[in-house]
Amino acid sequence: MPEERSEEEPRIEMTLKAVGRVRTPIKDPILRADARSLQLQGGLEDARRRARETADTVAEIEVYPEVVDLLDGIEDFSHLLVLYWAHLVPEVGRSLLKVHPIGTKEFPLKGIFATCSPARPNPVLVNAVRLLERNANVLRLSGLEAIDGTPLLDIKPYLPMYFKVEDPSLPDWMKRIVRELTDG
Amino acid sequence: MPEERSEEEPRIEMTLKAVGRVRTPIKDPILRADARSLQLQGGLEDARRRARETADTVAEIEVYPEVVDLLDGIEDFSHLLVLYWAHLVPEVGRSLLKVHPIGTKEFPLKGIFATCSPARPNPVLVNAVRLLERNANVLRLSGLEAIDGTPLLDIKPYLPMYFKVEDPSLPDWMKRIVRELTDG
Repeated sequence: MPEERSEEEPRIEMTLKAVGRVRTPIKDPILRADARSLQLQGGLEDARRRARETADTVAEIEVYPEVVDLLDGIEDFSHLLVLYWAHLVPEVGRSLLKVHPIGTKEFPLKGIFATCSPARPNPVLVNAVRLLERNANVLRLSGLEAIDGTPLLDIKPYLPMYFKVEDPSLPDWMKRIVRELTDG
Repeated sequence: MPEERSEEEPRIEMTLKAVGRVRTPIKDPILRADARSLQLQGGLEDARRRARETADTVAEIEVYPEVVDLLDGIEDFSHLLVLYWAHLVPEVGRSLLKVHPIGTKEFPLKGIFATCSPARPNPVLVNAVRLLERNANVLRLSGLEAIDGTPLLDIKPYLPMYFKVEDPSLPDWMKRIVRELTDG
């Protein structure tokens, strides 16, 4: 069990607030979760089509006008890290511990933290995106995988010293997924 | 104002739960926030020392034993993205919109989303880390900037297709900060 810890670790409420919304033509998630598993809507062919569609889509983030000052200076970065809440993951999907990656039985069960499952204990998803344009409180982006209406949580500048890893290694099953989603 | 949206965007509760804790010899944050500003504890020299100290430190994440299955297969990745809650940011620090980067007046005021301030509307911080070793529910890592006792929110595999950006561009003030923290 986790040890008892000292006063530097108060029992705090960790509640998020939306600071904006995603607007994109992509309306439905391709992965859905229930209490027992993650399910791919369609087959790997559909997942590949979605990956291509996402790569080609310009999405917008509308930051709420009352907090637009959060964006001051952001237009001088080419790339950003965007954090958002996977709002269509049901509460029961947050209790899953292992899933078949991309909801596909031919991949072996893995712990959620080894996968990109949107259903996770804390369904905060992260994308590195390219900033195409800023107009007041609206950012136009490529590379965002969120679906329409997703609550925005945070935007960070993409700094290579923090986020760029030169030669990360992956297990074979994950390399195969990457190939399945990007080839063909 | 944000438009009214349809039923695909229910009003949901976004509450996080800790799935583990960080253990590291680094006990105190170098940046602190109050209702008005971000403050560097010490000078840029101290910030540089901390950056070096962090780079040289092996930190541990203890994932709570009841959810250890979340880690199955994670040992086959060399790098991970770790999400954690900046638990020493006071609630008032979440309302800041602009700060002097690294709490230093010689840098011009910028919107929080253009900075790495730990005080943000949603203080979820992200590090790309190297996984050195897994022992049951404990991960040993380099590159983690969290302080001791920080609540763990999520771990994701580091996939280049999602997180590696080849040539991101940064404004001069941010380049200068990166130099200040890494040189000398």
